[in-house]
Amino acid sequence: MGNNVGNKAIILLSGGLDSATVTAIAAKRGFEIYALSFDYGQKHKKELEKAALIAKKHNAKKHIIAKCDMTIFGGSALTADIEIPKNKKETEIGLNIPITYVPARNTVFLSLALAWAETLCCYDLFIGVNAVDFSGYPDCRAEYIESYENMANIAMSITQESEHRLKIHTPLIKMSKGEIIKTGLELGVDYSDTITCYDYTPEGSCGECEACMLRLSGFRQAGITDPIKYRNVQR
Amino acid sequence: MGNNVGNKAIILLSGGLDSATVTAIAAKRGFEIYALSFDYGQKHKKELEKAALIAKKHNAKKHIIAKCDMTIFGGSALTADIEIPKNKKETEIGLNIPITYVPARNTVFLSLALAWAETLCCYDLFIGVNAVDFSGYPDCRAEYIESYENMANIAMSITQESEHRLKIHTPLIKMSKGEIIKTGLELGVDYSDTITCYDYTPEGSCGECEACMLRLSGFRQAGITDPIKYRNVQR
Repeated sequence: MGNNVGNKAIILLSGGLDSATVTAIAAKRGFEIYALSFDYGQKHKKELEKAALIAKKHNAKKHIIAKCDMTIFGGSALTADIEIPKNKKETEIGLNIPITYVPARNTVFLSLALAWAETLCCYDLFIGVNAVDFSGYPDCRAEYIESYENMANIAMSITQESEHRLKIHTPLIKMSKGEIIKTGLELGVDYSDTITCYDYTPEGSCGECEACMLRLSGFRQAGITDPIKYRNVQR
Repeated sequence: MGNNVGNKAIILLSGGLDSATVTAIAAKRGFEIYALSFDYGQKHKKELEKAALIAKKHNAKKHIIAKCDMTIFGGSALTADIEIPKNKKETEIGLNIPITYVPARNTVFLSLALAWAETLCCYDLFIGVNAVDFSGYPDCRAEYIESYENMANIAMSITQESEHRLKIHTPLIKMSKGEIIKTGLELGVDYSDTITCYDYTPEGSCGECEACMLRLSGFRQAGITDPIKYRNVQR
């Protein structure tokens, strides 16, 4: 920890709870933060405002919002005109690939991060994937990250010309939502700066979509009250 | 050949000579064509018009132009304000990674193709990479494609739920430019529908950038006159 001062790291920053925690972890490890967010056609853009706020609070050297329209492919409740499921049973979450899965999203995001890594000459990427809560998403597993990292080291020009290898850091991959929140709080993350809801409106988060349910259950596990505003939840 | 009728294939279609040839090869093999082009911030958009023409001539079931801004990362003469090198010696071409290399472009393009493959339920991708002429591009080598294919099969939901594997077809990978042109002509490709130049203007192709030089040398190898208009070349 702290021995990487001066090193650059690209952080995939959605503006959610996980990526905010990852940003704090990378900063704590002494990396200079280059935050990368995506305007990919998600239904609400509030998370991009939150991402900018989180980047600023962690003294990011630069924050880029990459525009990449993924709505043209359809197939997900997050980008297409498909209803977001509400009030699933907790035991159902993570069992199958949910309709909120955006096809190839992590692969597209990591690939745009590679483009930036090439021009920055940066060998460290951080991504907040988590295999515990999202076992239904194939692109959140350690096996996927390992395989992506192998591919990236073959693909990039900066790894052909140097002995350095690109490393994809996944500090949250084995943590429960409760552990993620506790880790972030120890590092001073203010979770009121984050947004998780798939169906956010100006009145607040819904509290009923899969993402809200996982978030609320994480705060319960951590024994903390979630500081954000919900429109449908009695806490 | 011809035994895949009814199967879908996604073709990465830039509007250049290589991807036009690949489209003809995939059609000949009996695939139903889903053409995918990219508006990534390239300096001229003429190639997207050509891509639409090629898709139409090959009865593509659908042609999508995906918008994904890669100019924000800079670092390439094709997207940033960097001069395109002209009149390189032929022996210099392919020796180093050229300034026209767009960082991680093939990785980003393949990743967007994966997103479409997921929603189409398509297991065949075609890409016109070529290791002979572009040995300087790390993401044009067979080793890269193999590693990408492995990653994709771990990443995708449609390969988790089925025994099918995604296959990335690279029919041109070992061909010289002359061989590519001869193959295309046998399949009826009209190379006047294609554009290759990095510095195209309404007066025609420059004939002096690396891409034009490789193209012209390919036509010489094939013993054919290039049908497109050049503004600086005596043929």
